[in-house]
Amino acid sequence: MSKVFVNIGLSLDGYMTPEGMTIENWENPKYKNWGAKWGALMGWLLRQQAFRENLKFGPGGETGPVNDMVRHTMERTGANIMGKRMFDQGEVSWPEDAPFHTPVYVLTHEKREPWVRPGGTTFYFVNDGPERALKLAREAAGTRDVRISGGADVIQQYLNLGVVEELEIALAPVLFGGGRRLFENIGEPGPTFRIDKVLAGPAATHLRYVRQ
Amino acid sequence: MSKVFVNIGLSLDGYMTPEGMTIENWENPKYKNWGAKWGALMGWLLRQQAFRENLKFGPGGETGPVNDMVRHTMERTGANIMGKRMFDQGEVSWPEDAPFHTPVYVLTHEKREPWVRPGGTTFYFVNDGPERALKLAREAAGTRDVRISGGADVIQQYLNLGVVEELEIALAPVLFGGGRRLFENIGEPGPTFRIDKVLAGPAATHLRYVRQ
Repeated sequence: MSKVFVNIGLSLDGYMTPEGMTIENWENPKYKNWGAKWGALMGWLLRQQAFRENLKFGPGGETGPVNDMVRHTMERTGANIMGKRMFDQGEVSWPEDAPFHTPVYVLTHEKREPWVRPGGTTFYFVNDGPERALKLAREAAGTRDVRISGGADVIQQYLNLGVVEELEIALAPVLFGGGRRLFENIGEPGPTFRIDKVLAGPAATHLRYVRQ
Repeated sequence: MSKVFVNIGLSLDGYMTPEGMTIENWENPKYKNWGAKWGALMGWLLRQQAFRENLKFGPGGETGPVNDMVRHTMERTGANIMGKRMFDQGEVSWPEDAPFHTPVYVLTHEKREPWVRPGGTTFYFVNDGPERALKLAREAAGTRDVRISGGADVIQQYLNLGVVEELEIALAPVLFGGGRRLFENIGEPGPTFRIDKVLAGPAATHLRYVRQ
């Protein structure tokens, strides 16, 4: 059966997004310095060949074990689940050919028809909660895996449901000082993980944890 | 000159100590499950030969790169700085032969004469703030280094002073769900670090960051 996994970038102080990184300030990356912080978090990813190909950034890019990992993550993913805030930010910033190439289940109270993008991404708007979205995503993924894409609050919901089997974190040596923390609102007892693998990159440490 | 460094254990969700781990509940590790959480954070350390020797736990213990790292940390340390809460907890739990074997500067408002322990540890109670404590610690350390031992609030003060040159974190795959976070109250702009070294252990990932 499909695995359920999380694969995100995290600041050293535990934030997924810096303060000020909102739709309102999308064109103003100097606001609270969010652009530089985001760059410090995700710079390693933007340089990988597989990522550049996917977003049609042009040829070139790094190859090697980090790139292999990025490519593997793309290839294993048969469906994505995300929150409404992440979708809203993406709707204004993704290219027309959205970078998922799978069904994407958006957790929202908004009722909306599926939104089909070129390149294989279709967004489905799920009003019945995270368990329903996971059921749909599993069915759609087939033998591939389900990625809980974010944001932090959606990942927290799935951690609390106990369904996250693999937690992959790219820990970057930047302090955000504020923003949206990955780990908040985790119920007791929380899920338990063991270290599965560590890949040391120059700009991020790639930590892979597996549910115990 | 002496380096100023931090070397701590951190839960995956960013806590240095779990909720409930207080002097009042020292004899009751089942309170909020703090004992099991602390064990999951620090178990790797308790098993190292160098640590066991230092606390006179008896012979045996793991050897290898993690043990070498623990021993190196002990040997490089010429003075420690800690907060009053950490001292108070240690006062009731360290062996008579306290495990520092250096001068220890305790940040406190309390006036108290130096407290000399067998084995080379003397606690000095500093009422004039973190910069004064650092000056005293540097003088005492000579060519060796100054360790900011904790707790979280004291480390935050030194991070905000911009004096922490090396930040060593043993990241354990346990979620505390609450407690004292390492990274809070960091001013803007915060200190900047680069990844220096990663040592992958089975029970913790040893991350070493150096100030940029």
